[in-house]
Amino acid sequence: MKKTTLMLAALACCTLLGTAHAEGPFRNPDNKNLKDVSEGTYPVPYKMPVAAEITDALNRIRAYMDKATPTRVVNRKTGAPITDFKNPIAEAKFEDAAGDYGILVYEMGVVHSGLLQAAQVTGDRSFTAMTQRHLQFFADKLPYFRAQENKFHLQRANSFARFLDPRALDDAGSMCAALMRARAAKVGPDLSGMIATCGDWVANKQFRLPDGTMARKRPQAVSLWGDDMYMSIPALAEMGRMTGERKYYDDAVNNVLNMSKYLFNAELGIYTHGWHANAPESPRFYWSRANGWAVLAMSDLLDVLPKDHPGYDKVLNQLRAALKGIAERQSGTGLWHQMIDRNDSYLETSASAMFVYTIAHAINQGWISPTAYGSVAQAGWAGLSTKINAQGQVEGTCVGTTLAGDQVYYYHRPTSVHALHGYGPMLLAGAEMLRLLKNPNVNIEYKVRTYHYQPKGAGKTDYSEHH
Amino acid sequence: MKKTTLMLAALACCTLLGTAHAEGPFRNPDNKNLKDVSEGTYPVPYKMPVAAEITDALNRIRAYMDKATPTRVVNRKTGAPITDFKNPIAEAKFEDAAGDYGILVYEMGVVHSGLLQAAQVTGDRSFTAMTQRHLQFFADKLPYFRAQENKFHLQRANSFARFLDPRALDDAGSMCAALMRARAAKVGPDLSGMIATCGDWVANKQFRLPDGTMARKRPQAVSLWGDDMYMSIPALAEMGRMTGERKYYDDAVNNVLNMSKYLFNAELGIYTHGWHANAPESPRFYWSRANGWAVLAMSDLLDVLPKDHPGYDKVLNQLRAALKGIAERQSGTGLWHQMIDRNDSYLETSASAMFVYTIAHAINQGWISPTAYGSVAQAGWAGLSTKINAQGQVEGTCVGTTLAGDQVYYYHRPTSVHALHGYGPMLLAGAEMLRLLKNPNVNIEYKVRTYHYQPKGAGKTDYSEHH
Amino acid sequence: MKKTTLMLAALACCTLLGTAHAEGPFRNPDNKNLKDVSEGTYPVPYKMPVAAEITDALNRIRAYMDKATPTRVVNRKTGAPITDFKNPIAEAKFEDAAGDYGILVYEMGVVHSGLLQAAQVTGDRSFTAMTQRHLQFFADKLPYFRAQENKFHLQRANSFARFLDPRALDDAGSMCAALMRARAAKVGPDLSGMIATCGDWVANKQFRLPDGTMARKRPQAVSLWGDDMYMSIPALAEMGRMTGERKYYDDAVNNVLNMSKYLFNAELGIYTHGWHANAPESPRFYWSRANGWAVLAMSDLLDVLPKDHPGYDKVLNQLRAALKGIAERQSGTGLWHQMIDRNDSYLETSASAMFVYTIAHAINQGWISPTAYGSVAQAGWAGLSTKINAQGQVEGTCVGTTLAGDQVYYYHRPTSVHALHGYGPMLLAGAEMLRLLKNPNVNIEYKVRTYHYQPKGAGKTDYSEHH
Repeated sequence: MKKTTLMLAALACCTLLGTAHAEGPFRNPDNKNLKDVSEGTYPVPYKMPVAAEITDALNRIRAYMDKATPTRVVNRKTGAPITDFKNPIAEAKFEDAAGDYGILVYEMGVVHSGLLQAAQVTGDRSFTAMTQRHLQFFADKLPYFRAQENKFHLQRANSFARFLDPRALDDAGSMCAALMRARAAKVGPDLSGMIATCGDWVANKQFRLPDGTMARKRPQAVSLWGDDMYMSIPALAEMGRMTGERKYYDDAVNNVLNMSKYLFNAELGIYTHGWHANAPESPRFYWSRANGWAVLAMSDLLDVLPKDHPGYDKVLNQLRAALKGIAERQSGTGLWHQMIDRNDSYLETSASAMFVYTIAHAINQGWISPTAYGSVAQAGWAGLSTKINAQGQVEGTCVGTTLAGDQVYYYHRPTSVHALHGYGPMLLAGAEMLRLLKNPNVNIEYKVRTYHYQPKGAGKTDYSEHH
Repeated sequence: MKKTTLMLAALACCTLLGTAHAEGPFRNPDNKNLKDVSEGTYPVPYKMPVAAEITDALNRIRAYMDKATPTRVVNRKTGAPITDFKNPIAEAKFEDAAGDYGILVYEMGVVHSGLLQAAQVTGDRSFTAMTQRHLQFFADKLPYFRAQENKFHLQRANSFARFLDPRALDDAGSMCAALMRARAAKVGPDLSGMIATCGDWVANKQFRLPDGTMARKRPQAVSLWGDDMYMSIPALAEMGRMTGERKYYDDAVNNVLNMSKYLFNAELGIYTHGWHANAPESPRFYWSRANGWAVLAMSDLLDVLPKDHPGYDKVLNQLRAALKGIAERQSGTGLWHQMIDRNDSYLETSASAMFVYTIAHAINQGWISPTAYGSVAQAGWAGLSTKINAQGQVEGTCVGTTLAGDQVYYYHRPTSVHALHGYGPMLLAGAEMLRLLKNPNVNIEYKVRTYHYQPKGAGKTDYSEHH
Repeated sequence: MKKTTLMLAALACCTLLGTAHAEGPFRNPDNKNLKDVSEGTYPVPYKMPVAAEITDALNRIRAYMDKATPTRVVNRKTGAPITDFKNPIAEAKFEDAAGDYGILVYEMGVVHSGLLQAAQVTGDRSFTAMTQRHLQFFADKLPYFRAQENKFHLQRANSFARFLDPRALDDAGSMCAALMRARAAKVGPDLSGMIATCGDWVANKQFRLPDGTMARKRPQAVSLWGDDMYMSIPALAEMGRMTGERKYYDDAVNNVLNMSKYLFNAELGIYTHGWHANAPESPRFYWSRANGWAVLAMSDLLDVLPKDHPGYDKVLNQLRAALKGIAERQSGTGLWHQMIDRNDSYLETSASAMFVYTIAHAINQGWISPTAYGSVAQAGWAGLSTKINAQGQVEGTCVGTTLAGDQVYYYHRPTSVHALHGYGPMLLAGAEMLRLLKNPNVNIEYKVRTYHYQPKGAGKTDYSEHH
């Protein structure tokens, strides 16, 4: 094996890029001096983000999602479309999406939230066409599947089971938040019935600890999942916004603070994946995506929580603490590892996208400083951009993952373009990067081969020693 | 170099498996759905441990050890067996074992302890045949070597030097504990003379700090070694059990607490290898095997320490703190790294085996929760199982290692199947995994592609959202 | 790909040696037993440092530097030497050095300091010949370039700009300290004028925080750089020594303590690269070279600070805390990583050399224990020695690097033999290793395949259990 090969092997290993899309090494095109020996190459396109490129990437993802998610009812056995919606048959089901892209799953809720943001920031309504189509389908076909259920009692096998008979936060919270956001953005038909169902589950029916913290009966009899911050808090927050009732905000804030009490390691600034009532002092597993759900949930809450709510500053401080811990664990590729504290675990896309979104959004909202976090977001997007392929697929996302108790499991969860978890966060991240590039309160200075994000009005810099 | 090659190289590097036995990637055979895209592959056989396979592995090790450790006296120069045991000659010595497997070394004490446990848990007395043979040989030949020593003054060159003239805890403690355990299990002849010698060294003659902590005069004039927790505490504990005298327990407890005071980093939950009286504030080297000796020693003590001893809870809490720190550093292969805090150091077998044994044992004894630690032990065994080859050799064990002051030394200690340090711990780990599989207080639930250890009576889990 | 190839690839990756000079694997030649199975191989020449080899390496570097740094004035356009020094022309400039080796840059100040130390420890005055030549050139040509400036106002394009019109600590501090050291060593002509200029900049004109901490107006309006500890403190210290005026010492001490307050992470024992007044709570970037500048600055200060200065113990304690944190992050090759806390970033030479120098120097000065740090320094030198090539070039040094806000930038800074930052520290490290080998207060014991540094008079060690 020659030296070159060795170096390549070393590179392959050390960056752990995993999937094949990076076409690097990349040279920063913002440095026009091609002879600059102080300019290196990068495994990701390290450069000023280009709005048109981000918009293009968002459009590719949108088009892929749109194509991959049919809204038709078919016969489970023959595959033929159902045409008679008067007389339900047991075999009727939603046509399968390509990959694993269920149109009612929690991951699709994030996709809708991402599309709504992309439409808002670009002003391009085509971003919400798919959401419009899915929601119209729900409105049209819910009565049919309710009748099917009443007649055949299919339970989980009913394509509409999540809303006919919700059983878990995964069934209800994320999609519920998305439906309320679409409603606020006047996208799609009136789905107040569905919103009532999922909202009731989150607010009133989900299993909880005595202190009100959202909990599950798996894998132990009483377990907390970091994921459930996203599966409940945004829905509660949106219910607060929709109804104006304070109790929803209180519940959301309470869940941020309680979940953080059980799961957040304040020394490291990161969340462990879960907690079991029967083993409160356990080894911790800092799964990146759980950290993604946590910060996304807090960010979503702060977007709507009245500033005079007594919990506002507490949630803000908790978000800041987590973003600091997360930012400090960003890899040399801009992405984050599957286990956020383990640089020999693979680079994972969905968590990285949630981090980039939340960091960029927190800058844009004025919650954290552009000085400190702007180039973290930018570097993160550089990494993410290598994970969107020409077909609009998002690569490198860890598939659905349970709350487990060993690193062998977490390290070796496969990644797949069919893991829907990466799509919504990627749309959110791209949309928020566009907002950051337009943010009038942030000045991005390209100096000495890197990028410096300056708060507007923060005083003049001086490079007179250089020139 | 093609992409495949790159990926292989990356895999080779990132798992740092070191030795060649893993035949992965492995697919979990407990998942019967061969089309499950959410099932990945593993570098180790990630699956429910199979008792018959563990027993088979234990038997292979036992057979190899048995074959590799002759108990004969030979002429140092000619290799011919000694037949005249009346008139000692200077050239008489123990026949060399294959590899580095001295029959009186401290590592062999751990082997005997492991064999005794394997016999106990399997009910198969063949596991103690080798122990019986070695101990009978000691009883038969000690008088001969004592006479040789009186006549020729060979000192360290006398094969029986460790008992004729003990000079260090390495000579005495581990084998002493093993001899007392064999005695309690009624394996082998009466060796009370040998026990008196080694016990006297540990309890009364070893160099110590003024506060009673076991110490050495190397590599500095006054140095502590984490290894000495195992080289002293189990022997003291067994003397306590054998004699009923409280003073031995007090000494053992005192050494746990003092050693931990000097060597344990409570923030990280791990032990540094050593400490020097002339440089109390030094950079620390978290050598895994020293951590293994530490937790094994505490576990051995708790096995016999009366629960009403005033030190019981302190020792238990210290063991829990260390096991938490250790579990949190398990690698993605189930094994632990040579430097427990350094994921670019190689994966080391002997320490990993001590950790798996102690964690599984602590679960079985009710000291720590199966919820938290069951799958850590299982994942650890998955890793360990790749290190036992077809001949019954244990691969990937760091050879004998001194207390050093730089990472270059520690990182590059060679590994060898001839390093006896891996054999006893592997026997212990396998035996304890068998016990865990039979533990009536633990229910192992295979759900969502991983394993959940539940305490009996801990309440029902509920997966109704899935089916 | 065969197993061997895999192992090679793994080795290549895991050691991250980067440049090509290591010709390992190396076997320790101090172990004469070629059949010793407990002796491994190393990626660096792990052995007792050999004074003649170090001296040879220092001479190679010296010769290379000497050859690479002409002291001539040439015509910018034609390249022809200037011969008329009466009538300044705009085109006159210093002849370019090979690589990036400006004779007035701060990195060259460190080179002079290193050469002065090499001369002192070896007694070989040829080490200061280049310093003598450069300084004489300054004395001869300053009037010419002053006249050129008065006539043409070239500002930064004037080769002597750093002294005609200093604008930053980079222009002034490091070279200023070197000029005062040369003066004290009676090397070169009287340069009191230049010393007055640069000293005035450091002491009186540099932008500062209100509390007196040295600051910059880049990349934010008010930013601190860890690098500035070296760019100011040694100059202040030398002014204290030269003038006997207490105020300089006070300022130097104040800057050590303030910089450490803003930049030092006391939990980890390492410095973050910088700090911005507009974002005091930011993610931290533990760039190794900034840590190098910090400890080098403190060490230089302690060399001249009167022991009865009220800040002496504070500075000493801060240096000790940093050296502990640094030593604990040494890699398995003896070198340190570009990001000191990230073992997947490359191994960086200049920082490693500063660490080896400061650790060895602190031992030699009695500030830290040889017990704890001797083998860290030795292992560090083993790594460094692989970075000095046959031509006397220093490999693997990160090029000039700004204070940035993302890991992608830091991880991918290129390395180059033309980065002058590695040369001075390497000279310092080699010279100090020579001093350590001769240190009468340290006994280096080679035992059990490694090296133990013992304070003289610390009591006897005892290996009688071995022989």
